[in-house]
Amino acid sequence: MARKGVIDTPRGQIRTPAFMPVGTAGTVKAMLPESVRATGADILLGNTYHLMLRPTADRIDRLGGLHRFMNWDRPILTDSGGFQVMSLADLRKLTEKGVTFRSHIDGSRHELTPERSMEIQRLLGSDIVMCFDECPALPADDKRVAESMRLSMRWAARSRDAFGDRPGHALFGIMQGGVTRELRAESAEKLKEIGFDGYAVGGLAVGEGQEAMFGVLDYAPGLLPEDKPRYLMGVGKPDDIVGAVQRGIDMMDCVLPSRSGRTGQAWTRRGQVNIKNARHQDDPRPLDEACTCPACRNYSRAYLHHVFKAQEIIASMLLTWHNLHYYQELMQGLRDAIGAGDLAAFVRGFHALRAGGDIEPL
Amino acid sequence: MARKGVIDTPRGQIRTPAFMPVGTAGTVKAMLPESVRATGADILLGNTYHLMLRPTADRIDRLGGLHRFMNWDRPILTDSGGFQVMSLADLRKLTEKGVTFRSHIDGSRHELTPERSMEIQRLLGSDIVMCFDECPALPADDKRVAESMRLSMRWAARSRDAFGDRPGHALFGIMQGGVTRELRAESAEKLKEIGFDGYAVGGLAVGEGQEAMFGVLDYAPGLLPEDKPRYLMGVGKPDDIVGAVQRGIDMMDCVLPSRSGRTGQAWTRRGQVNIKNARHQDDPRPLDEACTCPACRNYSRAYLHHVFKAQEIIASMLLTWHNLHYYQELMQGLRDAIGAGDLAAFVRGFHALRAGGDIEPL
Repeated sequence: MARKGVIDTPRGQIRTPAFMPVGTAGTVKAMLPESVRATGADILLGNTYHLMLRPTADRIDRLGGLHRFMNWDRPILTDSGGFQVMSLADLRKLTEKGVTFRSHIDGSRHELTPERSMEIQRLLGSDIVMCFDECPALPADDKRVAESMRLSMRWAARSRDAFGDRPGHALFGIMQGGVTRELRAESAEKLKEIGFDGYAVGGLAVGEGQEAMFGVLDYAPGLLPEDKPRYLMGVGKPDDIVGAVQRGIDMMDCVLPSRSGRTGQAWTRRGQVNIKNARHQDDPRPLDEACTCPACRNYSRAYLHHVFKAQEIIASMLLTWHNLHYYQELMQGLRDAIGAGDLAAFVRGFHALRAGGDIEPL
Repeated sequence: MARKGVIDTPRGQIRTPAFMPVGTAGTVKAMLPESVRATGADILLGNTYHLMLRPTADRIDRLGGLHRFMNWDRPILTDSGGFQVMSLADLRKLTEKGVTFRSHIDGSRHELTPERSMEIQRLLGSDIVMCFDECPALPADDKRVAESMRLSMRWAARSRDAFGDRPGHALFGIMQGGVTRELRAESAEKLKEIGFDGYAVGGLAVGEGQEAMFGVLDYAPGLLPEDKPRYLMGVGKPDDIVGAVQRGIDMMDCVLPSRSGRTGQAWTRRGQVNIKNARHQDDPRPLDEACTCPACRNYSRAYLHHVFKAQEIIASMLLTWHNLHYYQELMQGLRDAIGAGDLAAFVRGFHALRAGGDIEPL
């Protein structure tokens, strides 16, 4: 199922499989956008929920759109706000029409509907717009999952109508249905009937675990049109990404590499490194001797340990850069392996290197 | 008294008058060292007190010295630790021998003496080493200031002895004496008798105010050898810097541009800008339309306001970069004006522009 491709947009190409760093509030935390680009990212994700609350979509529109606002001229995908309303906002009230809620920042009242979500994403200037959907945390019973999925499908149709015809901008539908094959199939049929520029597998990475997620990914991409991008939302760890690509996923996003960087966790070819650990305090070696990111080229583990312990901003800057670099290098490795027809060997090597521990013995 | 020059070191030239950004704990906060260099800095300052406590001077030595540790291969000046012990440490006890204190980080007991300060600065690999001194906060009575100054002069002699002969490394003496001309003169004589590679004016910027500071600077540089660098420690705001250069100072350092950046204060040709202020939230203009730093080239005041309010790390990164860029541009302006023989006109322009408010009306 794995495949390599390119998505052409007026703002540049997106090489797939693609990993999209998350720029929640108009910034990929602790990074300048030119540094994000230097890691190899072709596209960023922006969060509608955060941006609509602060600085507001109208303000970003008046200032020339999100690309100009945050100094990123390549493609941006925005989520619909639905997922974050459910996980972050206060006093949520869900109806057929949409969701009302209070801002987690200042308590102000807001409403999100499929129509309003489309309007906000248009004001932001998003290149890839996501349908407004609802998504239950897993595990949940089939009845709840089915009702939620069918509501999301009605919202998908309203999103499609509200989006209209916007040349150069794409609208993606979002498949729901939890871990139940029949519901996933029903959702896929409905989305295809409506017709979208791309299709996301939603409602995963919400507590079901990797085995259940891969269980869905064993069949879900095959339910979607072969000639459109398939996007797995909110995933994930490096081994999640590899498994998803093997199963036919083209795009992913996750806060993990940037968030981990700020908590002292580095991802490397050999596995995870907790830079807080005292064993690094005298270690002159880089995080990964084969990595070409600035953190690995210019600094020792001892330095990274020191600046993390001293709560210096440069710790977040360097570890985030390293993690995003590692993620993009992994994507390039996957693309190259698919292109060369030896993905299976690449994946074996990926797992073998991680099994050996985070670094060679001194 | 103003003068332009170059200090040659094995690690590169320092163009004077020079402003030295402060890299307290092995990092100029929120900046990569290559970005600090890009602003035009020729030399950084490191803090002995912070580094001796964490990660410790021995550890930095084992890791190849401070330059390698923090990835800055140009000159580094280190202070002696004396000033920070007095302002930060707990349970200080001052004797003829030196100071004992407890770490503000973990409460551990430490001692600093002239000999130990020289050893630590050697372990760090400092290019310009400062004498260990003691400095009373002002205002203080003449007796206290005189006693303190004489202790510092005895410590200066011990520092000179302990420093020994280290080709390629410089030792600077520190003049004390508060705001009393006779004490300043006595201190200068004593330092010249000992003999140093450069001379600092210490004990200013400690609460006496700009007028009193300029009062001392009206005569203090003239008490020091003309053929050696004169360094004013811990100064200052842009107008302090201009006034000090007019009075014959060659080098300065201050946390102000970096610290201000983290608290939302920007320094510009037109004065100070508080980016927290709501008047910036819809302003598409840069902090300073004539500034070429990344914050001004790529971002609006509205963006900087937003990321500061959202407590995003990029706010500290961009505002610090801007402030350091502005400071270095000011130094280049001063050097150029001195070279062209029209410093007075430059200073008039400097004050006139600031008097007009922080930005042109829209």
